[in-house]
Amino acid sequence: MSVWPVHGVGEVTANTDLGELFALLLGKNAGGLMLLDGDVLVVTQKVISKAEGRIVSLDHGDENAKAALIEQESVRILRRRGTLMITETTHGFVCANAGIDLSNVEDGTAALLPLDPDRSARRLRADLRRLLGVDIAVIISDTFGRTWRQGVTDIAIGSAGIAPILDLRGTLDANGRELVATEVCVADEITAAADLVMGKASDIPAAIIRGCDQSWFAEGSIGEDVIRSPQDDLFR
Amino acid sequence: MSVWPVHGVGEVTANTDLGELFALLLGKNAGGLMLLDGDVLVVTQKVISKAEGRIVSLDHGDENAKAALIEQESVRILRRRGTLMITETTHGFVCANAGIDLSNVEDGTAALLPLDPDRSARRLRADLRRLLGVDIAVIISDTFGRTWRQGVTDIAIGSAGIAPILDLRGTLDANGRELVATEVCVADEITAAADLVMGKASDIPAAIIRGCDQSWFAEGSIGEDVIRSPQDDLFR
Repeated sequence: MSVWPVHGVGEVTANTDLGELFALLLGKNAGGLMLLDGDVLVVTQKVISKAEGRIVSLDHGDENAKAALIEQESVRILRRRGTLMITETTHGFVCANAGIDLSNVEDGTAALLPLDPDRSARRLRADLRRLLGVDIAVIISDTFGRTWRQGVTDIAIGSAGIAPILDLRGTLDANGRELVATEVCVADEITAAADLVMGKASDIPAAIIRGCDQSWFAEGSIGEDVIRSPQDDLFR
Repeated sequence: MSVWPVHGVGEVTANTDLGELFALLLGKNAGGLMLLDGDVLVVTQKVISKAEGRIVSLDHGDENAKAALIEQESVRILRRRGTLMITETTHGFVCANAGIDLSNVEDGTAALLPLDPDRSARRLRADLRRLLGVDIAVIISDTFGRTWRQGVTDIAIGSAGIAPILDLRGTLDANGRELVATEVCVADEITAAADLVMGKASDIPAAIIRGCDQSWFAEGSIGEDVIRSPQDDLFR
């Protein structure tokens, strides 16, 4: 399996057509890294949010305005400590500050999460199939903290062309015994791998993962398959 | 960056010297995949637990015996639902059933977590340096669930030769503004990438990640850097 950073994306605005942009960068004529059938293209949320116009005005120093924006993007506040809020977003993600991002945006603005990241992924996948004739999967990534571990990692907030969860229940282990509780979130593992070549401080907002098991390329979405419903959840 | 499965590990027992085993498989004379300076070798907990004799008798059908074993390996029980217990292990990990594993072990036995996975990683790293003359990092992986997301992913429970957290606080984003709250757990992202080529049902318990940023190869451990202390934690 190999992981490749996508260079040259540059500044993205509400006028950017991401399908056209990635088709130009990753097509046959670009002379560099090329998208191939069976690749997974991982794109950070920031780029999607910018292209979809999900940028709002926000005075970064105004904690009240920030809190109001977080509440607007949330359906539930789980915890609050100082200026940190852990909320459930309108999509059902549980994360810090409703996923609102103040880095790598213009001064005086903030990037909100895409309204429907699965739809964003489906659209980019369809555009690239139309423009380049490639059959790939697309994942939209974002950076989340973890309840009991220091440090953030990138996880998948939207996907298309891949079943995010690999269901191994019923398959046998090397000793011939049935595996239990083994639904692997390959979408999140792919997204984590992609982040290793992107780097938060750099302007590399996309990566290609090549060599995934082709059986993973099936129906599914993050919203349907990965977000845990509140009634199944032991910590909400 | 590239990710390679390590084939041929075979059955591991308390008599197995893991340093010798991986040196034989991954040395110059093996004629296949070779460990090189700057590689990260990810090894699953199961193999480490077996080699360190952390296998105990357990009747898989005896829920009381199972619960007693989980309590023995834990310092705190956070939640309980049916036969599922979320506990804090003696190491400080918060996970299902104290990380005790019933798959890929002999009938009537269970694999406990290594006593000190950071030490296990340091030992294997030192052995491979001595036997092969290579300067690599070693990560011990395990499979954990996530609070608010379906599906499990592999995370790092022990490490050596790598700083698990990449601290980007104080560095600037592409707009020249200081990044906040950006300590990336690269150890967990590397471990997730490794799992993509291992596969739970197969007998591939190790992988090599090549092409990591060499600045990550610094002091650190999972116990010191990644486990969140209970007082910093909003959900214990």
